[in-house]
Amino acid sequence: MEEKRIPEFFFNPSSVAVVGASANPAKLSHIIMKSIEEAGFRGSVYPVNPAHQEVLGRRCYPSLDTMEEGVDVAIFALPAEKVVEELQKGASNISGAIVISGGFSETGPRGRRLEEELLSAAKDKGVRIVGPNCMGIYDTVSGLDTLFIPYDRVDRPPAGRIAILSQSGSFALTAMDVLAREGIGVSRMVSYGNKIDVDEADCLDFLRDDENTDAIVMYIEGIDDGRRFVESARRCKKNLFAIKVGRREAGKRATTLHTGSIAGRYELYRAAFREAAITELSGFEEFIDACRAIHRFRPAGGNRVMIITDGGGMGVSVADMCVDEGLVLPELPEDVAEGLGKILPPYFTISNPLDLTGNATDEWYLTTLAKTMTHRSYDAAIVVLLWGPPGLTDALPSKICELSKRVGKPFLICSPGGRFTERMSAIFETLGVPVFSTPEGAVRAASIIAREGG
Amino acid sequence: MEEKRIPEFFFNPSSVAVVGASANPAKLSHIIMKSIEEAGFRGSVYPVNPAHQEVLGRRCYPSLDTMEEGVDVAIFALPAEKVVEELQKGASNISGAIVISGGFSETGPRGRRLEEELLSAAKDKGVRIVGPNCMGIYDTVSGLDTLFIPYDRVDRPPAGRIAILSQSGSFALTAMDVLAREGIGVSRMVSYGNKIDVDEADCLDFLRDDENTDAIVMYIEGIDDGRRFVESARRCKKNLFAIKVGRREAGKRATTLHTGSIAGRYELYRAAFREAAITELSGFEEFIDACRAIHRFRPAGGNRVMIITDGGGMGVSVADMCVDEGLVLPELPEDVAEGLGKILPPYFTISNPLDLTGNATDEWYLTTLAKTMTHRSYDAAIVVLLWGPPGLTDALPSKICELSKRVGKPFLICSPGGRFTERMSAIFETLGVPVFSTPEGAVRAASIIAREGG
Repeated sequence: MEEKRIPEFFFNPSSVAVVGASANPAKLSHIIMKSIEEAGFRGSVYPVNPAHQEVLGRRCYPSLDTMEEGVDVAIFALPAEKVVEELQKGASNISGAIVISGGFSETGPRGRRLEEELLSAAKDKGVRIVGPNCMGIYDTVSGLDTLFIPYDRVDRPPAGRIAILSQSGSFALTAMDVLAREGIGVSRMVSYGNKIDVDEADCLDFLRDDENTDAIVMYIEGIDDGRRFVESARRCKKNLFAIKVGRREAGKRATTLHTGSIAGRYELYRAAFREAAITELSGFEEFIDACRAIHRFRPAGGNRVMIITDGGGMGVSVADMCVDEGLVLPELPEDVAEGLGKILPPYFTISNPLDLTGNATDEWYLTTLAKTMTHRSYDAAIVVLLWGPPGLTDALPSKICELSKRVGKPFLICSPGGRFTERMSAIFETLGVPVFSTPEGAVRAASIIAREGG
Repeated sequence: MEEKRIPEFFFNPSSVAVVGASANPAKLSHIIMKSIEEAGFRGSVYPVNPAHQEVLGRRCYPSLDTMEEGVDVAIFALPAEKVVEELQKGASNISGAIVISGGFSETGPRGRRLEEELLSAAKDKGVRIVGPNCMGIYDTVSGLDTLFIPYDRVDRPPAGRIAILSQSGSFALTAMDVLAREGIGVSRMVSYGNKIDVDEADCLDFLRDDENTDAIVMYIEGIDDGRRFVESARRCKKNLFAIKVGRREAGKRATTLHTGSIAGRYELYRAAFREAAITELSGFEEFIDACRAIHRFRPAGGNRVMIITDGGGMGVSVADMCVDEGLVLPELPEDVAEGLGKILPPYFTISNPLDLTGNATDEWYLTTLAKTMTHRSYDAAIVVLLWGPPGLTDALPSKICELSKRVGKPFLICSPGGRFTERMSAIFETLGVPVFSTPEGAVRAASIIAREGG
């Protein structure tokens, strides 16, 4: 199959129309109009609806074909039966269609028939389609936001360098809500739902040359053309991550119902991910952790981790999880161990994990981190920082951050705890350094930056 | 080996002494005095230190043997070399010793020798020992708190029905800090560190008849007498949970260093847990999730889960994870499906997971939960509640809680999201219902309450 023309206009439209735009604030189409406004879309916005003269202060057209000029993208948020009709009428006036409406193949035979009609109408007229049964696009570069969930319900992330591609709108939206809370930015998000036309491969083909995007995180239920997907992924020399849902029988059935696609066998996906150097993510937590790690850290360039802790048990737990994740914990080089032996109390065991105990001080953390992490034996550090020891002060976070910058290797801070700990973690956050509130979170992130780039 | 006398006095002492109690607020012994005070211990508290007349307004004795009356428990927080000496001098005046001090077998041959001396001195005099190299006891029943971490650094949980037994003081303390933040209560916590005398088995023997404790969560690095442990666990007819750390080679070595015990082979532990009907926990996250689940839910009595969602992708993800955890997702019984078909839109697929889509309303959640969860096919529900759909209102949490009480089955609420979601989750929390902020968390809790009681 030849490479399809990349539908760039979805990512930089100079004008959009909202077909079915209602003046009723409870309607999805109205919320979409508001979202486009709130996101600060800089192009022209045209509501299309025969029932209104004006929607949200903008002149309303009765149908797409009555517009004097064409638009790049028409967003369809009206009952499924009407979508085909309106698209056929207005096709010559549009380049692309984002079909938000559900009621297609995911609902049964009647919907499937409608979906086939939609696709054939679009093909006839050369219109590219995102959807149907999707949330469409959230794009901090173009300022387009077709999400039908209001801003007071779900926050949008700031501009950033991570692109999200998702078959599930709700999954992507929920993830973005969490990312927004943490200040983690997104370049483009595409939710393509039943993806009868534009799919992962098309988006990857566009994103590979997108200077606004460094990494791409995908939510995948099923892929029809595996070879095309792998080829597009391989051509895309960016950091790629994917979660495959519907891995097991029960999930598989649910996937089929959800977007009407048939989830393939999990092992085939794993092989495809390996072939395309895509880092697999296990679920929602890893999806978020991957975004955190991409946003805040460079790739570690290796899987050799130094663990420094002030709680022995927490250090052992982290070591366990590291080994489970395929990370390695090299012993301290002899000269480094010797140097630390002169600084730390004589009864200390100089080892990896290194336990600074409840007597830990700021100075001990900084010295042990400096001595170990400047050595070529380690790619990343996991710093378990329990705030109980009174020798630790609120001056420590900024010093750790400085050191990490100076050393040029990622330090992952792990601070589980309660109210005092949260205040200290907030200091790290204001310095732009994320804090993991469980050992599992820190180890997942370490594993992700170790795997990055395959 | 015959069952040892259960050292009850550790759990209901009428008097304690703090040996080495310093007037210097930076010293661990001083912090312990403060902790005992802050926890509201109702018995007598005696500082012991030849250097002071008075500590924190209490008369100070030069040594244990100069006290007119004996005390139940002496807490030792002074250098390791001095512990043996002081214990020998005062042994006739005490029943039990909590030896906080480190510097014993965990530090090498010299410490090992000291530890042997300590044990032999205690055995000679019939003194029972908790520790050394431990945090001791936090007990909401007796009001004893021997933790050397100040209250402004680490919060203490309220009174509750969960006991925590831990080889690692920092692990237990960090967990309690998190539990405190969530209002989850604890009956007794024992950190026994190198556990040269009192160990898991002794504590289980006491807790099995403790009317303040319903469930026991253990952190285990290594157990020396496996048979005795299994016997004590089997006699204890409460809900038992354990995390085994040092599962892998790297962790194993770290464990040895940490408390001087040798971590046994992981598979033997798993077999012992099975034999003793102990639910194994995978790590810190499950440790906390288990406490959450025990605190808020009754055992589910089975592993059959109904998933209701308003985001298809999140529903599929939860289904995946349920299957991974050994939970089953029974299809809806025919009559239930038929009933729901009359209420929900005709194009909906009535299935498990049940996707209410972005059109979800309060009423749909309540109706579908009522119809499915009153049926004998399901033991628990996972309610994925994404707050994007405008049809969902802040009246829903209380109605879901009422319904869950009426039905008498656990509903696990899963609401990942940002600021709006957090406000809604806070409503659930004020009603005493926990909200899981990731699908993984909800599924772990569902798995725990399904496994409970073996």
